[in-house]
Amino acid sequence: MRYYQQLEAIFKRIATFEEIGAILSWDKEVMMPLGSIHKRAEHLSLIAEEIHNQINDPKVQELIKEVDLTNLSEIQKANFREIKRLVQMETSLPKDLKLAFVKAITNCEMNWREARQNNDYKAILPYLSEVIKLVKEIAVTRSEIFGISLYDALIHEFDPYRKSEAIDPIFKRLKEFLPGFITQVIETQSKIKLISLDENYPVAAQKELGMFCMDKLGFDFNLGRLDISTHPFCGGLKDDARITTRYQTNEFATSLMGVLHETGHAMYGQNLPKTLQPVYDALGMSIHESQSLFVEMQISRTKEFLSWILPFIKEKFGDHPGFTLDNLFNTSSRVNRSLIRVDADEVTYPLHVIIRYELEKEIISGNLQVEDIPLAWNENYEKLLGIKPDSNANGCMQDCHWFGGAFGYFPCYSLGAITAAQLFADAKKRMPDLLNDIKQGDFRRIMDYLKINIHQAASIYSADELIKRVTGSNLDVELYINYLKDKYLEQK
Amino acid sequence: MRYYQQLEAIFKRIATFEEIGAILSWDKEVMMPLGSIHKRAEHLSLIAEEIHNQINDPKVQELIKEVDLTNLSEIQKANFREIKRLVQMETSLPKDLKLAFVKAITNCEMNWREARQNNDYKAILPYLSEVIKLVKEIAVTRSEIFGISLYDALIHEFDPYRKSEAIDPIFKRLKEFLPGFITQVIETQSKIKLISLDENYPVAAQKELGMFCMDKLGFDFNLGRLDISTHPFCGGLKDDARITTRYQTNEFATSLMGVLHETGHAMYGQNLPKTLQPVYDALGMSIHESQSLFVEMQISRTKEFLSWILPFIKEKFGDHPGFTLDNLFNTSSRVNRSLIRVDADEVTYPLHVIIRYELEKEIISGNLQVEDIPLAWNENYEKLLGIKPDSNANGCMQDCHWFGGAFGYFPCYSLGAITAAQLFADAKKRMPDLLNDIKQGDFRRIMDYLKINIHQAASIYSADELIKRVTGSNLDVELYINYLKDKYLEQK
Repeated sequence: MRYYQQLEAIFKRIATFEEIGAILSWDKEVMMPLGSIHKRAEHLSLIAEEIHNQINDPKVQELIKEVDLTNLSEIQKANFREIKRLVQMETSLPKDLKLAFVKAITNCEMNWREARQNNDYKAILPYLSEVIKLVKEIAVTRSEIFGISLYDALIHEFDPYRKSEAIDPIFKRLKEFLPGFITQVIETQSKIKLISLDENYPVAAQKELGMFCMDKLGFDFNLGRLDISTHPFCGGLKDDARITTRYQTNEFATSLMGVLHETGHAMYGQNLPKTLQPVYDALGMSIHESQSLFVEMQISRTKEFLSWILPFIKEKFGDHPGFTLDNLFNTSSRVNRSLIRVDADEVTYPLHVIIRYELEKEIISGNLQVEDIPLAWNENYEKLLGIKPDSNANGCMQDCHWFGGAFGYFPCYSLGAITAAQLFADAKKRMPDLLNDIKQGDFRRIMDYLKINIHQAASIYSADELIKRVTGSNLDVELYINYLKDKYLEQK
Repeated sequence: MRYYQQLEAIFKRIATFEEIGAILSWDKEVMMPLGSIHKRAEHLSLIAEEIHNQINDPKVQELIKEVDLTNLSEIQKANFREIKRLVQMETSLPKDLKLAFVKAITNCEMNWREARQNNDYKAILPYLSEVIKLVKEIAVTRSEIFGISLYDALIHEFDPYRKSEAIDPIFKRLKEFLPGFITQVIETQSKIKLISLDENYPVAAQKELGMFCMDKLGFDFNLGRLDISTHPFCGGLKDDARITTRYQTNEFATSLMGVLHETGHAMYGQNLPKTLQPVYDALGMSIHESQSLFVEMQISRTKEFLSWILPFIKEKFGDHPGFTLDNLFNTSSRVNRSLIRVDADEVTYPLHVIIRYELEKEIISGNLQVEDIPLAWNENYEKLLGIKPDSNANGCMQDCHWFGGAFGYFPCYSLGAITAAQLFADAKKRMPDLLNDIKQGDFRRIMDYLKINIHQAASIYSADELIKRVTGSNLDVELYINYLKDKYLEQK
């Protein structure tokens, strides 16, 4: 037992360094004057070095060997499992490979910004090739250690225990279903005229509306903040959840829905159990994304939510001919074939993800060469989404993920969306009058459902286990397809 | 040489931790949601622990022994001198004493807030006694190691190399001069009617005016920020200087002068030379305070500055009958006998400091018992300032310094004021038309004077050496007295 407790203390210390890093990273995006970026890089790399040193201390390996499982509680066993996994992740890579990788992604990301602006794939090619070469080396090393496939070894970093053999059939089904469905939805929606919401929406009123919704959803402003940044995100720590948004003055919906999305992430953070690391940390990115999409897609983009918020919208911005329930709902659920993933609607979004997922697997297996990515990208967009990128800037260079070495991340977005729909269906089964709560602006029961079933479970189970424990079923793509049908073909 | 370079690397690392701590501390005052205070305490104590471990690493002592001075440049020698001094400061105290001290000041500060609110000196007495007991132990230990007096050992923490035998005659002279002078000034000023500046001053316009002045003084917003906090301060680091203010809407002068004061601190930070630690850090608190008071008292509270800023005040807030040069100057230089140091004017301020200085010396020497402080405080206020505190809350409990264990800090305020006046007189001697610059809002030459002579010298010399090198004289209280006479008896 005392060996285990020593490990607990070490990981408590690591968590404190991670929290410090989280505040410094938030500050970098929200507060830091630009001229100080080189100093902040020093700060963050010192924190990373400290964490590295703690985990790589030979003492940690020795303690792990000494721990006697029979004396541990279930939670402690789960914590020990996560400790071992993280230590294995961290110590599996040779130091040289790690350093080379950090250098490669730093260079590549930096050059990517300019190359994208200039629509110059050739300029980024050598940098991306280097990144991908190293990603493959990482995949090989981790694949051997964890006894999983090359690509699964990459997923593991973002969504532990998730396997592509479970993702493949889900994405296959969506790939079959969505193209025809999208045509059908666009056809149906084309009969509905949208009333433009163009108007001047003052930032102060938008912020008040966002904070009002955060508060109603249970966000604790004594343990968190809302601020502005170029790229909205949720940062900070459990007891200091910091979300950001950006405001445009000609419309309010993007920021409002963005705030609701980030509030989903933040509530996960604020509701995680405390005091034990790493098992009380958030589970991987697919569950994190399920929490943001639960709040954004399952709660907020419903007629019930919009009907509740409508009077407050009018109160904040004055009346407007477009401020009717049907027009707000139809505007917020309009489907379009478009090139940019982050701007995509709920229905086309999975195809953006599937294209990347399939290309990633080809890249990692060596079937697709780095110089051939643009062609393959464009062909897939035309085939699946029926729209051909006008440039690489709006094609394979649009996302930072690959240029930052994040292969295996993309599937989390759509797995999160499917999880969110499945959780909401389960919640409705348990509380049949749930939509009425939402219509009244009473989110206590639905947020408690998430808190008790998802947030408080932290990383005790794998994502698949957790979904099955809560809903009684494995991740169910058919349920998701039916959810989309109900939401998008029932529009009038 | 390579031993010295290893020391340099260690202190570079320590400096990075200190910078991280500075950002976390700024965030604590300006951004952090209150519920997260216990986490922030963990973050800051981990940083403190890391710094402690670095300095106390036995390797540091070994390296110091090995350094060969003959191979070092002058700057490196000065850096080595400062490294040795800091290591001696840090390692001189037994760990138990340090921990007991941190615990005692944390408890005492926490209880002081409530005790002050309740005007209950008895409630704070046991906590303050414990603090003072430990401060004395620290003084004894450091006094032996540095071969200086008990009280000088305390000053050393805030103003290295400063000795009370040099302060005594300065404060003695001010103590003789000021009481009569104050009577004379108040008598003179009583003939001048002030026009009230009461009005509504919007926060946004106040902020614009403050930032306009900061910019004119050379503050680099690419390397710093202005924000709001309950207690204005200057934090951050060389390349990320963060000052704060607070705004009242019924007047603008307090915030404007506060911003100018903190800008003086911040310019010192932004102009320090980089890359070498600790010798390129700021010199002690008396020089730091001289820089803020230089900008506030020597530059900004002059007729020339006010004449330059007046049109901009009118531009920001509209016209007002009180917006005349004479009225602004007379308002900003009005002298009053008052109880609270932080609200005191330039003329009475040194007496507030001298009272604390003399009491501190009596407390540390053991001549004054903790329970007798209120009586001694009140008697001294009556004797020196001619005003008797109506309560301990407005008396000896008004400042946090003693309750936070900061004995030896107070003299820095007045030594800073005297230094600022001496530097300004020197600058005027070198550039006779300097006041004309200020009248034109051109602060380049005066700020360059500070940069070249004070900021860039960092901690290479002691404060006394630096003042003598720059002005050719020792710290000169007569010059300060003449400055006060010129400024306060010439008013019409």
